[in-house]
Amino acid sequence: MQRIANLLVIKDGHVLLLKKPRRGWYVAPGGKMDPTESIFEAAEREFQEETGTTPIGTHLKGVYTMAIMDNAGQTVKDEWMLYTFIAHDLSGTPYETTTEGVLEWHPIESLQTLPMAEGDRTNLWFATQEPGMQYGTFFYTEQFNLLKEVLQKSVEGDE
Amino acid sequence: MQRIANLLVIKDGHVLLLKKPRRGWYVAPGGKMDPTESIFEAAEREFQEETGTTPIGTHLKGVYTMAIMDNAGQTVKDEWMLYTFIAHDLSGTPYETTTEGVLEWHPIESLQTLPMAEGDRTNLWFATQEPGMQYGTFFYTEQFNLLKEVLQKSVEGDE
Repeated sequence: MQRIANLLVIKDGHVLLLKKPRRGWYVAPGGKMDPTESIFEAAEREFQEETGTTPIGTHLKGVYTMAIMDNAGQTVKDEWMLYTFIAHDLSGTPYETTTEGVLEWHPIESLQTLPMAEGDRTNLWFATQEPGMQYGTFFYTEQFNLLKEVLQKSVEGDE
Repeated sequence: MQRIANLLVIKDGHVLLLKKPRRGWYVAPGGKMDPTESIFEAAEREFQEETGTTPIGTHLKGVYTMAIMDNAGQTVKDEWMLYTFIAHDLSGTPYETTTEGVLEWHPIESLQTLPMAEGDRTNLWFATQEPGMQYGTFFYTEQFNLLKEVLQKSVEGDE
């Protein structure tokens, strides 16, 4: 089962996003965990590889089960885990263009309108706006259209 | 890849532990995630099934990569993910004995001395004592002796 870690830097009201060439969709920098890595190590390594910078204040904001369903929406064709981190700063100057796409700073609010997977919009908006941790499952078609999302959240110390 | 979620209720200075019959080791109630479940849903479902009660204030405290190494410590034989939650109360009266083992309340401090996997001791102690989230990898032998642990932690909003 794939495990993907991504990391959104939120600094001065802006977020650092990667625009992927194929569909023009925006994502937070990230990628696949290596064997025996922790999710934290994977998020920082992937961010470093994709941006050329080191995140500061890395913290987990969401853990998501990603389910790809057949076109009838009945059978699970693939399933993986997504771990979404934030950081509040970075050390270094990000690449502008990489083999993965183009790196751009955008105002936080643009997360509501930029083209991206609808589940990513849910995750990244939570990560920038709300305290605590979010959990959930995103059900997608094989064409990556969102069928359904089921979410939970919690804040440490809340009743 | 297996995904395991467990949940430690911490109430009135005590924790609810399951004593497993085979080795007499203590664990937090939990078990395997079902397909398309979120980690939060899995932790609450497994806790409910194993104790007959519903946790209150469920919150994630740790995400761990578990690596079983061959006896030379060089090759990964198996790898899975462990998600450790806490709760500060429960609704209902826990079973005393289940097919999984015996449920017992113990003082928090006894986590340092009760027989258990050494990685579980690290996880559960962190969950009861420290703010924020812990991440890491535990390297075990096939006989489940701890070879090495590599840990990271973060607290939301910390610099």
